[in-house]
Amino acid sequence: MKKTIGIVGGMGPLATSDLFRKIVEITDAASDQEHVRVCIDNNTEIPDRTAAILKGGKDPVPEMVKSAVRLQGMGADVLIMPCNTAHYFYDRLTPFVDTPFLNMIEETAKEIKRRGIKKVGLLATDGTCQSGVYKTVFDAMGIEMCAPSPVHQSAVMDVIYKGVKAGNLSMDLTGFYGAMEELFADGAEVLVLGCTELPVAFDLFKIDKPNLDPTLVLAKAAVRFVGAKVKGE
Amino acid sequence: MKKTIGIVGGMGPLATSDLFRKIVEITDAASDQEHVRVCIDNNTEIPDRTAAILKGGKDPVPEMVKSAVRLQGMGADVLIMPCNTAHYFYDRLTPFVDTPFLNMIEETAKEIKRRGIKKVGLLATDGTCQSGVYKTVFDAMGIEMCAPSPVHQSAVMDVIYKGVKAGNLSMDLTGFYGAMEELFADGAEVLVLGCTELPVAFDLFKIDKPNLDPTLVLAKAAVRFVGAKVKGE
Repeated sequence: MKKTIGIVGGMGPLATSDLFRKIVEITDAASDQEHVRVCIDNNTEIPDRTAAILKGGKDPVPEMVKSAVRLQGMGADVLIMPCNTAHYFYDRLTPFVDTPFLNMIEETAKEIKRRGIKKVGLLATDGTCQSGVYKTVFDAMGIEMCAPSPVHQSAVMDVIYKGVKAGNLSMDLTGFYGAMEELFADGAEVLVLGCTELPVAFDLFKIDKPNLDPTLVLAKAAVRFVGAKVKGE
Repeated sequence: MKKTIGIVGGMGPLATSDLFRKIVEITDAASDQEHVRVCIDNNTEIPDRTAAILKGGKDPVPEMVKSAVRLQGMGADVLIMPCNTAHYFYDRLTPFVDTPFLNMIEETAKEIKRRGIKKVGLLATDGTCQSGVYKTVFDAMGIEMCAPSPVHQSAVMDVIYKGVKAGNLSMDLTGFYGAMEELFADGAEVLVLGCTELPVAFDLFKIDKPNLDPTLVLAKAAVRFVGAKVKGE
């Protein structure tokens, strides 16, 4: 069987479908048969990650492990998951699986180093910021990071929840542009789109600022891992 | 485990990702956990279906069966596949699996009957037309069908291959509109978009003609099958 990417999905379903589409779109393939084999467990029984971290909600690790083990059984050679916040549990997850498990946050950090970027600005939900998933990895790899001040952070939340999730294309983006300007003024060279809704927001609202999409970085890393060619590389 | 949809995918990868996205988008769910569990085997080792039917190419059935059996092992309660042409092999496939396997062509026929439509026009590739997958099912269910004349059929192929697959947004659509007008003149009440590229073409080129998207019909049937609610129903 050809080398296979396994996606521990359902966190959330739309982010899972977006990661899958990105894998297909970036693969340099002229026929169905040249594309990568991908297996997905869109496991919507995985409990809410933010609730588990911030409010003592149900532990999501057992369900995440079940999906990873099932994907191993499907023949996955490498596992990935498209949820930023879920990476808070990454170190508890990997001892349960034998298959290599790419870490989206670490792949993003490696891409930042590869580009020679010293300082980044983080755009993410309150939950992802408070979970410290990006800060921990960036600190360890010597990447400086800044995040919006509270008033601007609430504008980021608005774009995610009242903009993209609510499908409101006419929302006022003044606060969100303020957040981005604050990060660039703080020395950020690029914005890390640390929430799967944000690449969608950048598309929808035609925002043209230097940015890095961790889902796309992860898709490329996974395609390379299984020996396929990424378009343009 | 909650009821699960299994997708025998890879035919093609983009159509598979499109079917998955449609399932997510049409499900009436307010949180990740309310969404449907979906397992996908994007099996790009399945040989080309059109080549098998028209040119004696390698039989795709064994690889399709392997995917179906693996998805059963993942806990799938119902199987579906997003490829029109693959349904040519449907009757050879089902004896190998115990899980119910929804037939996209039959679900489309049922939806046509439900709407009280007597005659439809088929827009599809030469391969799908020649495979007779739609004609066989529509004949059996008493649905009249017409297809474009050869000159118009080549315009349909152009929209699929030189338009959508090549990403050419400025192509001349005169022939394609001619094909559609011919079908309506023949008495078609609705156009069946019997190729997964065609819903994309209707979106891209903002074509506003009565149509039915079998992938969407299948997504809704699968969501209902596992007991979830389709938005607006």
